[in-house]
Amino acid sequence: MSGGLDSATTLAMGKEKGFEFYALSFNYHQRHAIELEASKRVATYFNVLNHKVFDIDLEQIGGSALTDKNIDVPENTELAGIGDDIPITYVPARNTIFLSIALGWAESLGLHDIFIGANAVDYSGYPDCRPEYIQAFEDMANLATKAGVEGNGFQIHTPLISLTKSEIIKEGMRLGVDYGLTHSCYNPLENGKPCRKCDSCILREAGFIEAGSTDPLL
Amino acid sequence: MSGGLDSATTLAMGKEKGFEFYALSFNYHQRHAIELEASKRVATYFNVLNHKVFDIDLEQIGGSALTDKNIDVPENTELAGIGDDIPITYVPARNTIFLSIALGWAESLGLHDIFIGANAVDYSGYPDCRPEYIQAFEDMANLATKAGVEGNGFQIHTPLISLTKSEIIKEGMRLGVDYGLTHSCYNPLENGKPCRKCDSCILREAGFIEAGSTDPLL
Repeated sequence: MSGGLDSATTLAMGKEKGFEFYALSFNYHQRHAIELEASKRVATYFNVLNHKVFDIDLEQIGGSALTDKNIDVPENTELAGIGDDIPITYVPARNTIFLSIALGWAESLGLHDIFIGANAVDYSGYPDCRPEYIQAFEDMANLATKAGVEGNGFQIHTPLISLTKSEIIKEGMRLGVDYGLTHSCYNPLENGKPCRKCDSCILREAGFIEAGSTDPLL
Repeated sequence: MSGGLDSATTLAMGKEKGFEFYALSFNYHQRHAIELEASKRVATYFNVLNHKVFDIDLEQIGGSALTDKNIDVPENTELAGIGDDIPITYVPARNTIFLSIALGWAESLGLHDIFIGANAVDYSGYPDCRPEYIQAFEDMANLATKAGVEGNGFQIHTPLISLTKSEIIKEGMRLGVDYGLTHSCYNPLENGKPCRKCDSCILREAGFIEAGSTDPLL
């Protein structure tokens, strides 16, 4: 749970289906670590059973503008082009690392359902947000684990996978998500406000407009 | 590269095939962190290009005798029974977490070959040491990553996967591996010597006997 719009909506959708949540966030030494504050607000708002902020320094492997202070986050002024190429904000194997840790925690807790707000429509072109990837991860997870081998395997739930950003926002508003608690920007201003120039800001802003709404953060 | 017998032999076998290595070890707050000293000796011995000790505290997710100080490492006096059940030394999703981080580092370095000393014969019954698991991880990795999507994917090499412990030792001795540099015990004595009672010690000792050799650590 990053504390962004997608993970907050995923939590709301899961709760509507009757799930209770152990929420997992990552301090991966991202330049937008301010999102962890948002994750705590969202966890409190949704009354999760436990919220763990797992510490893993991905600067140790490098290779992304999100973790390497020497690589700038690119600026955009429009939606066009987002998703055509895999951008420099891609963190090598990030979702795989995060899902693996979630898998370990779930197995340790005796739980079998893992939710992730991956989205393959209005996204930045990251390969690890596609349904074929999620399915392959689930297959692997059920061969990797004691629980999987013993026939009590894992399901990776991705309720947002085929929704557009505006559909996600509409669904969240229907479920009472307070998007004022969330944070999406990769490169926030010194006062914590969104930059309105990174892919994440551009996608979020366009989503609210298309949903016929306004972003409480703006 | 744990610094154990298997990872040292894997490195030797890969070097014989012409590979040069970036070696990755994990400080996962294992009770046998002394193995990291062995990993450094092995890395130096084999002249790797780079040896990274990645820090990730798996106590954060718990669930194993290897990371939870409150769970004892079981003692064995014989080989019989090892591998029949998945033991309490199983760390939930450990190889998946480690391989995911290796995948991220490899992609960040522009490399495509990942070696792991997983072994499905004389092992402790861990599900994430089986060939079907390794294949599923490779399939997932090639959907997860920019390199995989762009058609320049990853191969997970497991040269030990179908060898017995004694075959591994014979192969290592042929290749000049100095097993005196390695460490295998889960629960070392205060002087750093192997306990000779954990699964890992029992398997190692039996392997040397079957190989008609003696363990330089004993």
